[in-house]
Amino acid sequence: MLTMTQLKDRSLLGLKDLGRDEIESILNRAAYWEAQHEKLVQVLASKFVANMFFENSTRTRFSFEMAEKRLGAQVLNFTAAASSVEKGESIYDTVRTLESMGIDAGVIRLKPAGVLEELSSKISVPLINAGDGNNEHPTQALLDLYTMKKRFGSLQGLTVSIIGDIKHSRVARSDLWALRKFGAEVKFCAPNNMTAPELEPFARYVTMEEALRSDVVMMLRVQLERHATGMLKSAEEYRAQYGLTEERASKLSKHTLIMHPAPVNRNVEIDDAVVESEQSAIFPQMSNGVPIRMAVMERAMK
Amino acid sequence: MLTMTQLKDRSLLGLKDLGRDEIESILNRAAYWEAQHEKLVQVLASKFVANMFFENSTRTRFSFEMAEKRLGAQVLNFTAAASSVEKGESIYDTVRTLESMGIDAGVIRLKPAGVLEELSSKISVPLINAGDGNNEHPTQALLDLYTMKKRFGSLQGLTVSIIGDIKHSRVARSDLWALRKFGAEVKFCAPNNMTAPELEPFARYVTMEEALRSDVVMMLRVQLERHATGMLKSAEEYRAQYGLTEERASKLSKHTLIMHPAPVNRNVEIDDAVVESEQSAIFPQMSNGVPIRMAVMERAMK
Amino acid sequence: MLTMTQLKDRSLLGLKDLGRDEIESILNRAAYWEAQHEKLVQVLASKFVANMFFENSTRTRFSFEMAEKRLGAQVLNFTAAASSVEKGESIYDTVRTLESMGIDAGVIRLKPAGVLEELSSKISVPLINAGDGNNEHPTQALLDLYTMKKRFGSLQGLTVSIIGDIKHSRVARSDLWALRKFGAEVKFCAPNNMTAPELEPFARYVTMEEALRSDVVMMLRVQLERHATGMLKSAEEYRAQYGLTEERASKLSKHTLIMHPAPVNRNVEIDDAVVESEQSAIFPQMSNGVPIRMAVMERAMK
Repeated sequence: MLTMTQLKDRSLLGLKDLGRDEIESILNRAAYWEAQHEKLVQVLASKFVANMFFENSTRTRFSFEMAEKRLGAQVLNFTAAASSVEKGESIYDTVRTLESMGIDAGVIRLKPAGVLEELSSKISVPLINAGDGNNEHPTQALLDLYTMKKRFGSLQGLTVSIIGDIKHSRVARSDLWALRKFGAEVKFCAPNNMTAPELEPFARYVTMEEALRSDVVMMLRVQLERHATGMLKSAEEYRAQYGLTEERASKLSKHTLIMHPAPVNRNVEIDDAVVESEQSAIFPQMSNGVPIRMAVMERAMK
Repeated sequence: MLTMTQLKDRSLLGLKDLGRDEIESILNRAAYWEAQHEKLVQVLASKFVANMFFENSTRTRFSFEMAEKRLGAQVLNFTAAASSVEKGESIYDTVRTLESMGIDAGVIRLKPAGVLEELSSKISVPLINAGDGNNEHPTQALLDLYTMKKRFGSLQGLTVSIIGDIKHSRVARSDLWALRKFGAEVKFCAPNNMTAPELEPFARYVTMEEALRSDVVMMLRVQLERHATGMLKSAEEYRAQYGLTEERASKLSKHTLIMHPAPVNRNVEIDDAVVESEQSAIFPQMSNGVPIRMAVMERAMK
Repeated sequence: MLTMTQLKDRSLLGLKDLGRDEIESILNRAAYWEAQHEKLVQVLASKFVANMFFENSTRTRFSFEMAEKRLGAQVLNFTAAASSVEKGESIYDTVRTLESMGIDAGVIRLKPAGVLEELSSKISVPLINAGDGNNEHPTQALLDLYTMKKRFGSLQGLTVSIIGDIKHSRVARSDLWALRKFGAEVKFCAPNNMTAPELEPFARYVTMEEALRSDVVMMLRVQLERHATGMLKSAEEYRAQYGLTEERASKLSKHTLIMHPAPVNRNVEIDDAVVESEQSAIFPQMSNGVPIRMAVMERAMK
């Protein structure tokens, strides 16, 4: 039985309250795993982990599963139609159930923001946040930092522009909290109805022009389904104003790194030809996600 | 190739026709597995098991998967939208297909009651019933017995009240058949339109008041979707008449054990505060499900 | 990193362009695996394979998973609702994502025909076609050939009739290409609106009467959902004209082998009593699919 302190040290709910040293230690361990020649190691043999996705996901779940299996862990996947578990209460019962069955850690994605902290306090195994509403997505931000650090050597002094729907983005928030700890400057660029007023003390809103003059240009996914609600006039219009078009990409400084948490809407927030251009780290980000999650799962269970 | 007798000895279709000795031997083996310190043992290495759920399930499938993986078995999960396999014929073709591919045992949940026996006679690998219509749910009853035995030492002479929708409950039936073999007395308490006349020779229907004066009070899940059909007036009304409210729970004898097969509708058949109260065995039941299913799967394949 | 030639040698996109020697070598290796007494061998330990099904499938996915796990590979299953990945672009992004995460091979089923070749040229891990539109389904044809060869010793000179919806059948195409390489004669029998004009140079269309006078009679699944579009008048009428009814089956030569790629519509294209009759190889085909896919996956990753 883990103590509450041990549990807290093994869980990963967000980066806002995680120390810089802790983050650095995860990044370093990820580098170790990336360099590891063996694809399958038995570090977590006999450990059972449940991937509990209360919200649809392909790549994040897959990336965690890959990381867990590379460490030799036993993996159980749980996916819930949002309908049957929309209430926080029900999520608790499900997680508590899997805990009762003897899992050693749980990876969890869920729609409602802000319930994870309380959930974690009631569960006696480490929980890893794989995205909770618009709150945090810590492993995504960790892989982002890892990708930037690989490219630039250090995060200190980097300028990072995050462009798009800041309001609904857990990626923007986790990146913001983490990057600030390492002395990077985060700038936001967003349509008026996609800003997050509560983040204004921490990141300036800039024009698209200024946003593109940064070391890192991170495009966020447009939720095309918000068309219907009138938040977006049209994909074309969005692209014209906030998209990383080929034209805009061609004017970027040669050292600028293009990032995106994926999946991308090609030719909406980013042009087709830019996705795999030389300056783009979009698929390398996905590669980096695996060693990052290996480090996180090892920390949770070893 | 197993003989028909061996096959029958390794399958678990229900408890009605299973000998008391057999049940006792499964309960004893579960105790062995519960005490086992190692989480992963290679008892069933090289064995392939298919979990075939023709009806939705989260916890039962997960519990079986956990048990199978703890024994080192290779697990393949099959879930079917009810629509595509509603006919018994189609279920047969699917199971026969998986059998042809070389599985060593199959765990099966299906909606239609009464087809499992015939199915089993046509399939040459052991089948484990994970719930068939309103007929039986043997592993649930086994874990119930295991939980009661752990608490009371013996089942002989216990009074067990099962409260709720007896008519549609395979759990009530499996518990009834098994408990009777061990000299426990089962009482039912149900709304008029939720009784099962064919079970009247085996269990008395009692008032809620009498039901609560028992060693075990087992609440059944209310199928809220039956509202629409007029079977339930309202969740509030159901709770008032048949729910284990905080007030009712407070009046239970201190030695009474509260059980529920889960998932619970909090504040319908059981109050929120009662679910994890000291007298409740609801989450321990789920914990006990894993060693029970380990014993059952080991029996099927070893 | 594999060279393009190695990649091509390890992928399996179709049988049309695969050499006879290559096919023979897969068939021979399947025979080795079928004879293998151990169910689990560690030939592909440390290899990661993703089963990516962009189109629903039960038995094909299961058969691949069984084959992969019998070889000790780590398996990740990805299933996509057709809706979210209908465009070829999106399929590319998903496959590229899984590739980025470090899989060693991918098994892929997808609706659009003709995109797999291009996809394969952009992906640096071997891809195995598990069915692409109406184009090819190479592992199904390989198991068909394997089944015929087991029964007849040689494929040379065999007459094989394929009966039903040729137009939409990838199985018919893959079987046609492969059987021709071994000197077997393929004949088609189909309703007028289910023929494939582009295949006429390679296979004669014959009457039902003639079709039934063959060494192999292979029935194709009727897509009952095409009723609505008027392609089928009724299941009854289809059965009367093109079904392998009990009556027709009773008149087959005793040496004729009945085959079907499954799942079957009992009493539509084939009568219930015929499915598991002595001359039917339908379930043996499914058994044979596992060693065939073991050979294919071993070739892809060893």
